[in-house]
Parts: sequence; structure tokens; C-alpha cells
Amino acid sequence: MPRVVIVGAGFGGLQCARRLVGKPVDVLLMDRHNYHLFTPLLYQVASSLLNPSDIAYPVRTVFRGARNVAFRVAEVTGADLSAGVLRTAEGPDEPFDYLVLATGARVNFFGQDTIAARAFSLNTLSAALGLRDHVLRCFEAATAADLPNRRRLLTFVVAGAGPTGVEYAGALGELVRIMAGRDYPGLSRADVRILVLEGAERVLPAFPATLGADAQRRLQRLGATIRTGVRVESADDQSVTLSTGEIIPCGTLVWAAGVQPNTLDGGLDAPRGPGGRVAVDDSLRVPGRDRVFAIGDMAAFTQDGGPLPMLAQPAIQAGRAVAANVLRDLAGKPMRSFRYKDPGVMATVGRNAGVALIRGIALKGWLGWVTWLAVHLVFIIGFRNRVAVMLRWAWNYFFYDRPIRFIIGSR
Amino acid sequence: MPRVVIVGAGFGGLQCARRLVGKPVDVLLMDRHNYHLFTPLLYQVASSLLNPSDIAYPVRTVFRGARNVAFRVAEVTGADLSAGVLRTAEGPDEPFDYLVLATGARVNFFGQDTIAARAFSLNTLSAALGLRDHVLRCFEAATAADLPNRRRLLTFVVAGAGPTGVEYAGALGELVRIMAGRDYPGLSRADVRILVLEGAERVLPAFPATLGADAQRRLQRLGATIRTGVRVESADDQSVTLSTGEIIPCGTLVWAAGVQPNTLDGGLDAPRGPGGRVAVDDSLRVPGRDRVFAIGDMAAFTQDGGPLPMLAQPAIQAGRAVAANVLRDLAGKPMRSFRYKDPGVMATVGRNAGVALIRGIALKGWLGWVTWLAVHLVFIIGFRNRVAVMLRWAWNYFFYDRPIRFIIGSR
Repeated sequence: MPRVVIVGAGFGGLQCARRLVGKPVDVLLMDRHNYHLFTPLLYQVASSLLNPSDIAYPVRTVFRGARNVAFRVAEVTGADLSAGVLRTAEGPDEPFDYLVLATGARVNFFGQDTIAARAFSLNTLSAALGLRDHVLRCFEAATAADLPNRRRLLTFVVAGAGPTGVEYAGALGELVRIMAGRDYPGLSRADVRILVLEGAERVLPAFPATLGADAQRRLQRLGATIRTGVRVESADDQSVTLSTGEIIPCGTLVWAAGVQPNTLDGGLDAPRGPGGRVAVDDSLRVPGRDRVFAIGDMAAFTQDGGPLPMLAQPAIQAGRAVAANVLRDLAGKPMRSFRYKDPGVMATVGRNAGVALIRGIALKGWLGWVTWLAVHLVFIIGFRNRVAVMLRWAWNYFFYDRPIRFIIGSR
Repeated sequence: MPRVVIVGAGFGGLQCARRLVGKPVDVLLMDRHNYHLFTPLLYQVASSLLNPSDIAYPVRTVFRGARNVAFRVAEVTGADLSAGVLRTAEGPDEPFDYLVLATGARVNFFGQDTIAARAFSLNTLSAALGLRDHVLRCFEAATAADLPNRRRLLTFVVAGAGPTGVEYAGALGELVRIMAGRDYPGLSRADVRILVLEGAERVLPAFPATLGADAQRRLQRLGATIRTGVRVESADDQSVTLSTGEIIPCGTLVWAAGVQPNTLDGGLDAPRGPGGRVAVDDSLRVPGRDRVFAIGDMAAFTQDGGPLPMLAQPAIQAGRAVAANVLRDLAGKPMRSFRYKDPGVMATVGRNAGVALIRGIALKGWLGWVTWLAVHLVFIIGFRNRVAVMLRWAWNYFFYDRPIRFIIGSR
């Protein structure tokens, strides 16, 4: 049977593999991790609300019983598209008849090494856990520190006010509200400073202006300070320097100001489109390669004059389309052109507040939050996780608590 | 108010602090971690059954609202008992009127550095998570390995057949039964070897012989091989060498063959009793020090001719007794002598099987397991954790699954 190799078990790769279960192909799904990660909720792990197992799911369990789908944990370092072979760091190489590249994105520090050395990001499970540990450590250290150091340790700078930065800042504001005074009697909310910086002129630049303004108001109500038109330029152990020249002493820098496509570290001979993403044709194929597809964050599919956004939904829809096209090709039928159907965008801002744009309808406040909740609950993979996440959210909502507050990493 | 400093938020220290809530003392509880850990279930975290948050609880949350109890995360490096001051790695030092030492125990490799460098242990949360990651990594690597390496990667050596070794080996046997064949179609249970080694002449030396024999039979039914009267002498990256001279290639060495008291790394001027534990008098005080107590694993309280076992129950009872004695002393009353009431010992061996000795009655099989379950559910601190753990146990029991199988640590 023809061999379909899928690189990446994120939203796109996983959907593609699921659509090929039981079909006349041998599927090999590869990922550097042994789990699928529900990345839209990573900020809730970073803010002590969810457990890793609430948003991660072992890939092998997803394909249990699927006889034609194999899984391998490996780091793919490159692809020889002409020879039809993938190279891996651990060896052996993997030959393919069809290749689906779905390697996603990683954080982009735009070459600023001092920021890369200092900043926490929100794009992997270990990064989120590291941030969780660090924030709690700052609170513990602040209880014993003198005034200038306490102010510094309790200053949290979030670079970037897209959905990731806004959602994390909101969740951090909630966490502070729960901990300051209650668990840390010596610290008050006034000691804590959450500073959200956005290089563009407003919060949530990809959302309609009214929703961005609403999110900003709600963040401010949670105690965050928002500044637009300003960027973090560099960082050291004790502070960050802004594009205005200001130096802000801080204990934590969270970088939510940019991602870049994962393109096998240059080991991929394919033309690049906008933002360094791999350019693809109408059928999501790498130009000139009939059986090599690229989907999700790492690929640039152009529709209505621009590339699709780097979100879960475009990846999911593209993964399904690629699976269908592989099967059509095998059946001797022509491939179909892909067209993305935009279901909307959404973000939460703390408890009870969210913003959403669904089929042109703008929702905010409690309605936006309930919409966000419903969509994410339906969306989360696996029944068990759904129940666990729902219970934990309910606990948090009614009892106003964050039970998952451990500093586990070694110091 | 007089200041009571308690070092260690394990079973003993936590109980002591809880009994002093609202009393006319200022309590400072110190621990190197910000959470209390339910160590009897650590092996279930290590075997992908429970989440860290199921068995850990933030100390600050336990004492929320307790105005006379403060908490500090710090590494205590020594104590000047004459001057009444505790030294910490981070500074500042902490003065005390009463001192309660409850620093617990750590793993003991008996000076065998090659074992210390290689072995995983089951005494901290990060150690348990590291072991979980490692076991799953061995399975992933085995799928791609040649036959000799596959055999090696799937050989798990557990050194020590006390409760920790037996419970972990049983849980690992269950995990293998769930994963081999189903999630790893290329691996069968016959590829996996679990080898439990015990230096003494039988399994569970501290239990009655019939219970030890029952546990051994059940471990064997789960696919484990048990050898008694043999120890691991040394280790390298690929294998372990036994006291018989045999060399066993293996992918994992779990060390459950000994613990030693944590006694502030020598920074404590107090006489030592059996096993290096701090000797204490009838009232749990360090000899010659009227207001310095030592309880739990780090102390040796002698009763009926021997020191109390290093288990949770002696620590809990001693913590309560010390709190009562501090209050009696402050009230001008004489301190009471401590007497340990033994509630029994117990251990599980996989699903549906356990051994317990409760008030002289030996329970085994399903009855032993239900007893174990009930005692541990009642025992676990905090309502939320109890519900979460029960749900996860129920899930595991009815659906025969281990949902928490992630390799999170960096490679």
C-alpha cells in the first residue's frame, strides 16, 4: 500500500491522520512529542488552572486499534523531496509516497538574543510549566525581599497583546487576585504590576476595534496596565528595555509577540511564501511536488489576497482536505482546490469575560465568554479530558481557586 | 507571642502546624517546596496514573485564613540550638523559641556513586515525573531498536521489595499490560521484563510472611520476576551488576532499596540514634534541649525496643503530640510522654490486589485492596484532591486505561 508520512501531530497532522484511518494507505505519523497538545489552553496551564493531562493526549491512544496508522516519536531534520525520504535526528530515515508537512510554528524572538535568553514563552508544555513554576517562585521570593526587589519580582511584563498575550495576562490577573492577600497575607494586589506591551496601535489587532477596546477595558479592570505602540527591545536578568528607551525592572518577561514557521531548520528544499512559511498551491501542495503537502502554521495558503492565519482552524480544515486529496489521487481522480471557511476568532479575558467574532457577529462580556467556553469544550479532543477540564473550570468558577500551584522544576 | 518554627511540611510538620492554628503562638512553617506531598501515592504519578495535583497541595492554601501561621519556601542548612536560630541558604536566618524538626528522609544509595548517577528514585515529585518520562521514552525508543537493544530498553530493574518497590513494580506491570500490544502494536508483554530484587530473604520484609508471599505471587502474575537475597552492586549506562556478579542489561533502574534521614547536612548539633536519625526523648525532644523537637523519618523515637518505622502515621501522631506539648509547656504544665498507636501497614499490588495488616488482622487480595483504597481516600488531604483522585482511580478501574502518559521533560 502507498505510504503516507505525516510530520507533526498538531491540529493539522492529527486530523489528516484520523481521516486516513481504515483507508487503503499505510500512514506514519511523526512528532517530537508523544502527545497531541491543545495549544489554545496552554496559558491556563501556565497560570495554574489546568493540569498538563487536561490539554495533552497521548497520540498512540488516539490511534489505538487503527491498524494502518503507526506513530513514531522523532525529530525530523530534513526532507529529500526528489528521493522521497525524510531524515531524522535519531535515524533511521523514513521513505514516503505522500508527504504531509504539518510542523507548526515556534516562538520568534526576531534575533534578539538577550530576550531569547530571558523570556518565557507559551508555545510548548514544558515552557508553560516553566512559566508556572517561575511565577510562583517570584511570589515566594517577594515575601522575603526588600521593597525595590519586591516591586521588581512582582512586575510581570507580557510582550504582545494578541490572543495569547491577552489571555495569559487576564489569567495572571485572576491568579494574582486569588493569591495576593489570601495566600500571601504580606502582599497586596497593589504590589503586583502586570504590564502588557503591544507594538501595534491597539490590543488584539486581528479583532474588530470594538472587541479590542473591550478586552483592553477588562484587562485594566483585572489590574493590568496596557501600553500600545511600544516594544521590548532587549532584556537582562533584572529588567527589560523598551523601544522608548525606558528601563523596566521586572521579575518575569513573557514573550507573546511573534511566532515563526517550523520548516525543518532549512533542511527542506521548498520555496517560501509570506513570513517564511512554505508556499503551497490550490491543493495545498508544495509547488512542483505532486505528492508533498504543507498545512497549518508552517505553510502559507493564500486566500482572498493574504495567507491564512496561524490558528487551529485553518490547520484542521487543511488536514482534512489533504487526506481527501490523497485518497482522490489514489483513486485516479483529480485533487480538489482547498477553500478555508472562517468560523471566527475568540479570546477570553479572565473570568466571565471574552470577545468573539463568529460569522461576522461580535460577542463580548459574559456572552463572549460562554461562547468561548462552549466552543473549547466541544473542541477538546477525547472524552476524558473534556470532563476533567469542565470539572476544573467549574471548580475555579464557583470556588474561585487555583488548586494547581506547585513549583516542581528544580531550582 | 512565642515563636514556633517548624522545618518541613510533610506529614509530621503539617499536622503539628494545623494543631497550632488559632493558639497563642506565632508559627513559621518552612519547606523547600511550596506544596505538601502525599508521598504514599508518588508511585502512581511515576506510573502515569495520577497527576501531580492529585497528590500535592499548596501549603499556603492549607493555612489560608490562619492568622498565626506563616509559611516560607526555604532551604534550611543548619540550626544553632543554643542561640535559637535557624540558618537558611537564601537568608535571612530565622529565630525560634520552639523548634520542630520534621525534615523527613531522602534516598540512600549507600555511597554507591555509579548507582546514584544512574538510578531513578521515588521520593520527590520531580523524581517521579522524571521516572514517568523515562519509562515512556524507553517504550518509544524500543519500537525503533534492534532486538538486543529492544530487550535492554524494556528491562526494568526495581531494587528493593519493600512497599515502595512492590507498589511501583505492580503499577508498572499494569501499565505494561495496558500499553504493550494496544498502544505499541509491535511490542508484546513478553518483550518486557520487570525484575524486582530484594537483599533480604523475602518480599515485604516488614509484613507478615503470608502477606509477603501473597504479594510476590500477585507480582509474578503481573509479569514481574522476583529475586530475593540479591542486591544491585553497581551500574553503568547500559546495565547493572548484581551482588552475584551477574550483569543485567537494562534501560531503567529504580532504586527503592533505602532511605536516610535528612538531618540538615550535618548542620545540626544533636546526637544520632539508629540509622543516623536524631535521637529523641520520651516527649520527642532532642536530648538536653527543652524546646527542640524532632519527629517523623528524621528522628528515632524508641518504643518497644526499636525505633518507629519511617512511615506517615508515626510522623502524623508525633506532630500532633508535639503541638500539644508546646501548648502544655506554655501553660506551665509538664509535657506528656509520646506513645505510638500502630494502625497497621498496607500495600497494593496492581489492580484489585493489596495486602494489609490492620490491628493484627491480615487482609489480602481484593479485600486488602479495598481497605487500602478506603484508607488512602480518607487520608488524602483536601476535598478537591480526594474527588479528583477517586475519579481517576474509577476511570482506571472501569476503562482500564492510563490517560496521563506524556513525556514532558526536555530530551
